Amino acid sequence: MRTMGRHVIAELWDCDLEKLNNVQFIEQTFVDAALRSGAEVREVTFHKFAPHGVSGVVIISESHLTIHSFPEHGYASIDVYTCGDLDPTVAANYIAEALGAKMREAVVVPRGMGPVIVGA
Amino acid sequence: MRTMGRHVIAELWDCDLEKLNNVQFIEQTFVDAALRSGAEVREVTFHKFAPHGVSGVVIISESHLTIHSFPEHGYASIDVYTCGDLDPTVAANYIAEALGAKMREAVVVPRGMGPVIVGA
Repeated sequence: MRTMGRHVIAELWDCDLEKLNNVQFIEQTFVDAALRSGAEVREVTFHKFAPHGVSGVVIISESHLTIHSFPEHGYASIDVYTCGDLDPTVAANYIAEALGAKMREAVVVPRGMGPVIVGA
Repeated sequence: MRTMGRHVIAELWDCDLEKLNNVQFIEQTFVDAALRSGAEVREVTFHKFAPHGVSGVVIISESHLTIHSFPEHGYASIDVYTCGDLDPTVAANYIAEALGAKMREAVVVPRGMGPVIVGA
């Protein structure tokens, strides 16, 4: 297994508030995102907070996808990290669209190649 | 819940090879790291790959900790993301020491504050 990977760190704002608080929708969206990017899903764990907010992860053979949603702020913090030849932006873009994010920012961080270098 | 958080992205090299392949050790180390940083543990999921390597996550009320280990390269890719007042470097340093990393590099990414800005 090669160590090389790419990690998308994305901040999604002005999302659909109901979707941000719907743990079933978010879990399905994340599994779909992983599969669309060609990843192999290994573990799926999502947690609904009271009164609102969802955190969760999909562990894939090629690393992971995570979310922390803040429905009260219309904000979701997501990470899509894939090793090998997969393109993490496929899943990140799918998630951003599914959550109805009107504003988003992302950086891509190369992983497993030595020094940590951050590129936009 | 405030959206503001800090996310440590750390690359650990020259780690103890046996520890990198020991899923029980890694899971316990990550739970301990979360608790030492003052976090509240919500979900714990770790996966052992064949023939080697461990991936896993601890979902905390304040976000998450993840690892992907590559024993064959002495490498572990870790993330510690905490919201609020917790200091993610406490857990990141604890993990690096527990895994015997002789070389490590890390960046801290502020999250949930608007634009993605990366600082060393």
